[in-house]
Amino acid sequence: MSDVAGESGTLYGVGVGPGDPELMTLKAARILGEAPVVAFFSKRGRSGNARRIVEGRFNPAAEELRLEYPFTVEVPVGDPRYRTEMAAFYDDAARQVAARLDQGRDVAVLCEGDPLFYGSYMYLHDRLAGRYAAEVVPGITAMSGCWARAGAPMTRGDDMLCVVSGTMDEDGLAERLAGADAAVVMKAGRNLAKVRSALARAGKLDRAVYVERGTMPEETVVRLADKPDDDGPYFSLVLVPTERRTV
Amino acid sequence: MSDVAGESGTLYGVGVGPGDPELMTLKAARILGEAPVVAFFSKRGRSGNARRIVEGRFNPAAEELRLEYPFTVEVPVGDPRYRTEMAAFYDDAARQVAARLDQGRDVAVLCEGDPLFYGSYMYLHDRLAGRYAAEVVPGITAMSGCWARAGAPMTRGDDMLCVVSGTMDEDGLAERLAGADAAVVMKAGRNLAKVRSALARAGKLDRAVYVERGTMPEETVVRLADKPDDDGPYFSLVLVPTERRTV
Repeated sequence: MSDVAGESGTLYGVGVGPGDPELMTLKAARILGEAPVVAFFSKRGRSGNARRIVEGRFNPAAEELRLEYPFTVEVPVGDPRYRTEMAAFYDDAARQVAARLDQGRDVAVLCEGDPLFYGSYMYLHDRLAGRYAAEVVPGITAMSGCWARAGAPMTRGDDMLCVVSGTMDEDGLAERLAGADAAVVMKAGRNLAKVRSALARAGKLDRAVYVERGTMPEETVVRLADKPDDDGPYFSLVLVPTERRTV
Repeated sequence: MSDVAGESGTLYGVGVGPGDPELMTLKAARILGEAPVVAFFSKRGRSGNARRIVEGRFNPAAEELRLEYPFTVEVPVGDPRYRTEMAAFYDDAARQVAARLDQGRDVAVLCEGDPLFYGSYMYLHDRLAGRYAAEVVPGITAMSGCWARAGAPMTRGDDMLCVVSGTMDEDGLAERLAGADAAVVMKAGRNLAKVRSALARAGKLDRAVYVERGTMPEETVVRLADKPDDDGPYFSLVLVPTERRTV
């Protein structure tokens, strides 16, 4: 690890996994133990889930660099403010990280799950990886953590897996779910009535499993058909394991 | 960990990640350090990649249970022998694992990548998880390891990811690749000419990255358009990262 002036530091995108701190990799643990700067995104006034996962697992002498999102409530991606304000936010976050790298200090950016799979780290990577040495440490994705807890064999042999967002319109969801051997619906919680209806149209509601806060102490794993309501947090998932049992 | 007679042992499906031993989770390392029996699948006469990954990382007093596939050359899934011989093989493997569990000994089954994502562990899970306590430890998938090495942001925002097998016919591949924001083509190596052609038809050949033995010392990461031949090992991947840069 570099912590001397004269040459630039390295940017690390460190996947810390789905929630259970023990689901971090040995490599992530080593890099966090050594990094002089630990950066993480958070909502205003909150420490954020990635930071919580690594509590007690990084160098106590490290600088903590909190990168606080500009919105206190979520602004939809379609809102005209979203693109400009978020771009300005990531530009500023990249400048703060770059200032540390310019001092020759390595910066480990914490990422829930995997850094390059729906992660905010990518917006720093876009802006910095061409100018500084950058290394990505893959992490256990939320979906892997969830299907492990569900004990659900997801894909076998030549199965096709489709990962879709619950924000998609119902027709699109139903079509994708019907065409795939196995599926994961991300951002399912606030779209659960629609997801349920799309799964029923695709003939796959019976196989669907709802997982909330998978691998965390407060996790819920339940057959979607047995879940009595359509309430769930934003980052809950629906898994549709393959039906095939090849041998 | 249970290693006493009287009550049954626990079956662990342990993901050991994509190849780099440091990409194992802390939990996998702990369970391997404690398990009295370490089981793994291998081809006849070879130790297998999962076993190689954990070299020196499990309890030296543990029993190694090698589960050797019946075929010295691969038999295609469509061959009538495949289903019967493989089913008999997994039945026998399950009996060998069950005998240890019945003695009250925990068995850790090694799985490259993630146990429930295209892994052979599932065929033991199918046969044993209803009868014994079973716990799955998720692992970094080959695809996560590969996109980390490629430094390729794969999916953002509400992107749809499609994971397909290179064994699919070209029309099916082209259709799936055209319809997804991001894609992973598994088993690409022996199907590379077809995959290349399907990607060109989907207008995505320029974005495709070929990865062979990702995260291992002998890895290859190259833009598919720059790869001069269509040769590759069975387990190589093609990544098609998202084109979108949302902010």
